[in-house]
Amino acid sequence: MGNLLVVGSMAFDSVKTPFGEATDVLGGSATYFATAASFFTNVDLIAVVGEDFPDEHLQFLESRGIDLSGLERRPGKTFRWRGEYTYQLNEAHTLDTQLNVLETFRPRIPDHFREPAMLFLGNIDPELQLDVLQQVKRPRVVACDTMNYWIEGKPDALWNVLKHIDILVINDGEARELGRNANLVQVAKHILAQGPKHLIIKRGEYGVLMFNEQHVFGAPAFPLEQVKDPTGAGDTFAGGFMGSLAATGDLSDEGLRRAIIYGSVMASFNVEEFSLDRLRSLRKQDIDERFRQFKLLTHFEDLS
Amino acid sequence: MGNLLVVGSMAFDSVKTPFGEATDVLGGSATYFATAASFFTNVDLIAVVGEDFPDEHLQFLESRGIDLSGLERRPGKTFRWRGEYTYQLNEAHTLDTQLNVLETFRPRIPDHFREPAMLFLGNIDPELQLDVLQQVKRPRVVACDTMNYWIEGKPDALWNVLKHIDILVINDGEARELGRNANLVQVAKHILAQGPKHLIIKRGEYGVLMFNEQHVFGAPAFPLEQVKDPTGAGDTFAGGFMGSLAATGDLSDEGLRRAIIYGSVMASFNVEEFSLDRLRSLRKQDIDERFRQFKLLTHFEDLS
Repeated sequence: MGNLLVVGSMAFDSVKTPFGEATDVLGGSATYFATAASFFTNVDLIAVVGEDFPDEHLQFLESRGIDLSGLERRPGKTFRWRGEYTYQLNEAHTLDTQLNVLETFRPRIPDHFREPAMLFLGNIDPELQLDVLQQVKRPRVVACDTMNYWIEGKPDALWNVLKHIDILVINDGEARELGRNANLVQVAKHILAQGPKHLIIKRGEYGVLMFNEQHVFGAPAFPLEQVKDPTGAGDTFAGGFMGSLAATGDLSDEGLRRAIIYGSVMASFNVEEFSLDRLRSLRKQDIDERFRQFKLLTHFEDLS
Repeated sequence: MGNLLVVGSMAFDSVKTPFGEATDVLGGSATYFATAASFFTNVDLIAVVGEDFPDEHLQFLESRGIDLSGLERRPGKTFRWRGEYTYQLNEAHTLDTQLNVLETFRPRIPDHFREPAMLFLGNIDPELQLDVLQQVKRPRVVACDTMNYWIEGKPDALWNVLKHIDILVINDGEARELGRNANLVQVAKHILAQGPKHLIIKRGEYGVLMFNEQHVFGAPAFPLEQVKDPTGAGDTFAGGFMGSLAATGDLSDEGLRRAIIYGSVMASFNVEEFSLDRLRSLRKQDIDERFRQFKLLTHFEDLS
């Protein structure tokens, strides 16, 4: 069993929700993904930070066993995102984005990372995602995320990425935009015909759908009494999903479904606090316990 | 095992969706509810129609075994609703409402309906719901629906109704308004403390949540390739739910969960065509087959 490689962003986030606010806290898609995945498997991380990135954040990631030898530190400032949520917590309103060192980021995969068992291409320019794919020996599983910005701005490069991946993980609005169709079943048929074997659609507080040629799997999100900050929910979902997939190596329908639930478990913890603070104190037994609660949440029997 | 009694509206609906339109077709909460429930159990219906209501609609309901001896036919016109849906099919935009004979409707329960095993109080004035409750011997199960109009207009009467019922079935927007809180888990605690033993929250294309003191159950909606008209989805859900509950008499957590899935099955069929046209050709084996598909949709195993 090899490692899980993730390429994505690291950031300082400033977030305001009806339940509080946090300024210049640790964020970024690779950060959330790697931290969530680290509860399941060994994670190698490729990202870029600026000179202003404090050692304590790196120490935290290293304490999670994440290999940072592919992390670039460059002159300039770290990527910054500022956003706000209303009581409709499902949707972030971006107030400010400062790409900073991310603007000229060209992921370079160190030699010792070039044979990952599984690869997650976080939400970056699809041309860079292609470039990463060319630097590695084809992993057993490649999954990728994207966003409206690339769907609208670089559709050709994005569809080209989709030809080379196994699993696309996007949210429902993005899926509808990518498939140019309001109906998610029709969207799934369209996207699956272009390359990916599995399409995972994240619906925030409404849970997840996974489509492939044979099956559809649907899981609700875990109903929580306290949601403080939804930032990073999608990335911790993906991290839990890919992490548990890498840990078991089980790509059967059953294995994928289980990984979806582990992803949902990780996302459900993450939104309970700002930044990835909830993951800092999380224990393996908390994860196992919430997995059992997910089973209770969704289980039903037929009559016979 | 006794009968299932429903009190609600019968209507002519005119509906426009991105997939077509239908004018002056059969609608109304009691109509959808009773038709869906009739696939599981005997249904007695209390509603009012005007002189313009055609016999063919009554014949259809009677062909489903629904007892119409409590149906009032009064001078004047039948209740009419006109609405429209965009691609965001989860939300109806009401264009016109003509209450007509519904405006002065005072449900009178005939003697032979006064000992129902289960009772569903459709979405009508909460004062009328209370009045119905006083006319019947306390059924084993009383469920009720309501809407924003009554939450805002007659909150005291509505909270009084809630003291006397077992199951409240409402949509998520209504739940948040009734509980004055955006968080559904907190809303559920608040509402369950006021009387109902179970709270069922309908979330349209996102499925259903059921809360009670011990458990939470969540089920996604069935992913459909074709949704023509969402009108009546909530009422067919409630009809399938109460119908299957009345058929088995099983009020255990397991029985309630199964009933939720039967409700979801009925709603998933109903939205495939305008009005309740899909239910006209539906067979018991279609229902059983989709129940099995629901099991495949939601099933996962843990590792051990």
